[in-house]
Amino acid sequence: MDKIVALAKRRGLMFQSSEIYGGLNGFWDYGPLGVELKRNVRQAWWDDMITRHDELSIPAGAPSTFDMVGVETSIIMHPQVWKVSGHFDLFCDKMVDCKESRKRYRLDHVKGRWIESVKRVQGEIPEGAAPERVFITTMAEIDERNDDIEKKALQYFGLRSKDAGKLKFVSEIESLPPVEQFVDVIAPDARSKATLTTPRDFNLMFKTTLGALGTEDDAAFLRPETAQGMFVNFKNVCDSSRVKIPFGIAQIGKSFRNEITPRNFTFRSREFEQMEVEFFCHPQDSLAWYTYWRDRRYKWYTDLGISSDKLILREHTHEELAHYSVGTADVEYAFPFLPAGEYGELEGVAHRGDFDLRSHSQGKLRKEGNELVVEAGADGKPKYLGSGKDLSYFDDQSRERYLPHVIEPAAGCDRATLAFLCEAYHEDKQPDEKGEMQERVVLKLHPRLAPVKVAIFPLIKKDGMPEKAAEIYREFKRAGITAAYDQQAAIGRRYRRMDEIGTPYCITVDGDTMSADTVTIRNRDTLEQIRLPVKEVVDHIAKLVR
Amino acid sequence: MDKIVALAKRRGLMFQSSEIYGGLNGFWDYGPLGVELKRNVRQAWWDDMITRHDELSIPAGAPSTFDMVGVETSIIMHPQVWKVSGHFDLFCDKMVDCKESRKRYRLDHVKGRWIESVKRVQGEIPEGAAPERVFITTMAEIDERNDDIEKKALQYFGLRSKDAGKLKFVSEIESLPPVEQFVDVIAPDARSKATLTTPRDFNLMFKTTLGALGTEDDAAFLRPETAQGMFVNFKNVCDSSRVKIPFGIAQIGKSFRNEITPRNFTFRSREFEQMEVEFFCHPQDSLAWYTYWRDRRYKWYTDLGISSDKLILREHTHEELAHYSVGTADVEYAFPFLPAGEYGELEGVAHRGDFDLRSHSQGKLRKEGNELVVEAGADGKPKYLGSGKDLSYFDDQSRERYLPHVIEPAAGCDRATLAFLCEAYHEDKQPDEKGEMQERVVLKLHPRLAPVKVAIFPLIKKDGMPEKAAEIYREFKRAGITAAYDQQAAIGRRYRRMDEIGTPYCITVDGDTMSADTVTIRNRDTLEQIRLPVKEVVDHIAKLVR
Repeated sequence: MDKIVALAKRRGLMFQSSEIYGGLNGFWDYGPLGVELKRNVRQAWWDDMITRHDELSIPAGAPSTFDMVGVETSIIMHPQVWKVSGHFDLFCDKMVDCKESRKRYRLDHVKGRWIESVKRVQGEIPEGAAPERVFITTMAEIDERNDDIEKKALQYFGLRSKDAGKLKFVSEIESLPPVEQFVDVIAPDARSKATLTTPRDFNLMFKTTLGALGTEDDAAFLRPETAQGMFVNFKNVCDSSRVKIPFGIAQIGKSFRNEITPRNFTFRSREFEQMEVEFFCHPQDSLAWYTYWRDRRYKWYTDLGISSDKLILREHTHEELAHYSVGTADVEYAFPFLPAGEYGELEGVAHRGDFDLRSHSQGKLRKEGNELVVEAGADGKPKYLGSGKDLSYFDDQSRERYLPHVIEPAAGCDRATLAFLCEAYHEDKQPDEKGEMQERVVLKLHPRLAPVKVAIFPLIKKDGMPEKAAEIYREFKRAGITAAYDQQAAIGRRYRRMDEIGTPYCITVDGDTMSADTVTIRNRDTLEQIRLPVKEVVDHIAKLVR
Repeated sequence: MDKIVALAKRRGLMFQSSEIYGGLNGFWDYGPLGVELKRNVRQAWWDDMITRHDELSIPAGAPSTFDMVGVETSIIMHPQVWKVSGHFDLFCDKMVDCKESRKRYRLDHVKGRWIESVKRVQGEIPEGAAPERVFITTMAEIDERNDDIEKKALQYFGLRSKDAGKLKFVSEIESLPPVEQFVDVIAPDARSKATLTTPRDFNLMFKTTLGALGTEDDAAFLRPETAQGMFVNFKNVCDSSRVKIPFGIAQIGKSFRNEITPRNFTFRSREFEQMEVEFFCHPQDSLAWYTYWRDRRYKWYTDLGISSDKLILREHTHEELAHYSVGTADVEYAFPFLPAGEYGELEGVAHRGDFDLRSHSQGKLRKEGNELVVEAGADGKPKYLGSGKDLSYFDDQSRERYLPHVIEPAAGCDRATLAFLCEAYHEDKQPDEKGEMQERVVLKLHPRLAPVKVAIFPLIKKDGMPEKAAEIYREFKRAGITAAYDQQAAIGRRYRRMDEIGTPYCITVDGDTMSADTVTIRNRDTLEQIRLPVKEVVDHIAKLVR
């Protein structure tokens, strides 16, 4: 993973945000090559989900043909949207504050152990005294007998290192005990006991204020997901386009979550881009569509080069499901920063029932048995009101009116980009011009994703070769194909520069080009070279990279 | 303009954000067709500025050839960036509060007039009493003798309507008087005098808080411009790619400004998308590059269909220039919502000197004579420190080290989209199948910008025509060309549906298609129809729309 991060920085894929100011935790910038890679991921998704989604007459495995349309909705939406969706109340982490250190911790990040011993009194350890119990915390990973915990325990009991045997580790490794036992807890950065407050909910939405008054009524939130933009526009889309159920609304856009501990490069960041589909269907077809989208989205990643032995489809257990969901599966990838056997989520494909459309008509919902009912506030009235708009769908063939069910394939664009990058990274040895084996770093990116599609080299810097190569270069540009021109250094070094950024094809202008108007095309992965007439190269490459 | 707004809603171009919740002032969503239009604007800009910017060997009018690369930087950046750039202190509107109505107003929006009269005392107007002076305000547009102002003045002086002649309008229409005269001002929604506070700066950046602590140290801002993302990455881009000066860094992305009065459809909104280039050059070439970019950017709009009699290039006067700028020009368009003769800004092309790179090395700057010096705070130390990083450029040919100058063409993506839409809107009369003249709404969008490039119609719903048309439709999809299929209603009505959304070409499958394998292609603007073999249509259309 370190090698990938180093390559990303060296070749301009990703940088820390505001790096010259020391960076900003949880925020990342894409450099010149990174932005082309990410644009290609977005474009592949938009093409495959919208523009070309029905290039075959009936999608394989689909219950029927269907429409797909796009939208782009604003990052800041009406605050009522988040109350009705449940994010305002429920999109929270539990946090505890420490009154001594004035630090704040995520409850599930504080771990520790109960330890018993007897305190030293006037320099002596009293014989036969009853042992005291204390819970020593840490923010680090802990195992059997943690040095850090032992040190803090010795300090608390006033013991010396040689007295370590007097400590009794009475618990297995565990998270914080119940609140009523907080009096015996020593917080991670505290010296005395009982400094932690009762856990509180900390909402993960970034809050801001609209307009000049700055009152609580003007509070607004950066969206934590793009999905609500599709739900609140469901009626607008139905009314303004001629889509019929089943159909999908798709969107690519930024979302924001105030993660307490962003980590793992761009995997868990506070500002990230989503690629989401909300697919609206008849309730009785919804399980078939759920299966269809789950399998289709898994295949999207393998079609673009992720090997299936590193990609799993994990069905959520009943306990993991959101209260409105009857089924969710995650597409997960074995990122190299994770321990062996662990996977990180690339995409969640969720069956959301009619929860969202129903909430936005009626108000905030909760489940009562198998029914969704409008949740009541303390005064017995609905806690948060929906729009009051009828969001049902009328099928003019069957004359049936119903609330559609929704299948939501929600992908992370930055995570997909990172997975494609990790999967593409290879090191091998290849012979140079002199036949000597050289270390090579190569990004085996799918040609559709490669930031640069083709590089054009003049073999030598004379005999008209640079001019001829530049002419071919400009022909690629005119065709809208991202191309590079390079005349510096030996040809082998130029190949390696291109291998390192994943350029799938390199064209060399040589003596035969000048006499016979042909060029060689070298394949990044097979290293095979073929020779083609100059007038055919643009079409040849165009077919390979689209 | 009303017709364009209505079309936008009817056909799914733009909607109010969160419309089912009553909308959110200053925020807009793009519907299925709007998102394709906006994507095409972005793609045209990226292609023309980056991918294909040098498809000709030497850009016409340019002092030399150059590189262009893209980046995508985060919306939330390190807060120090905005202190050093000056936005934290200077990106403000002046606001006044009213102590009576508890409302807040933008200083330059409050207008009014001085009025003199004598107060009615015990029902009588005293003869020969000295007149009193009061400044009556309004938030509406005012002209010669404003009814609203007159009414408020009569009320203040205790006069009746018939006494209107006793009022003396002593001033021309003007903005609020100096603060020391506020004692005589009646605020827009107040009844008594002297309720306005001293004007205060109101920063236009949206503020939020990072992390869980919520202290002032964790304050962060949504970027009000994408430009700073390029400046803080200047060194990263130089180090990671092989660009040499002159070169440009380009970015498309969302920015946010807490406008007090968003208005004019999507023209002035609080969340908007920018397309910005920061072009780095040698100081002695900077004026030539300024001219080059100013003219090239103007031409970009006319190339994409904006007529030059509605588009002006306005050089800023010396007074309008920012303190660091030696020249700025705006590309402005005669939007239909503006009064005749007025123009709205599409893009600013600014010569920024070395202000930004110098600030980010040293700290917040101000101008002293012709020199830029680090601004000092109250304690005499630098007010805000820059990164301390050396952001100069070393030219290894001339062995010269210098701080590059910057030319910044900064375009608004939503504004460009709106201008293209306004320019495209036409109404005319065209004969239908029966030769009768019919009203037609047509969007004459440039083919590169049209949301749908081609529509395929079977003439009738039998004889194999639907299947044949669907086959052609899918061939367009496979080629990545946005296509529509329509078999509903008379052919003339289908044409009009496509005209209204700007589809440049309509293909009809008819009897001859079935016998001779040819189709007709109808041109949206000329209404001419040509006949082509089926196997040539995709290539034919592809050439026209790219």
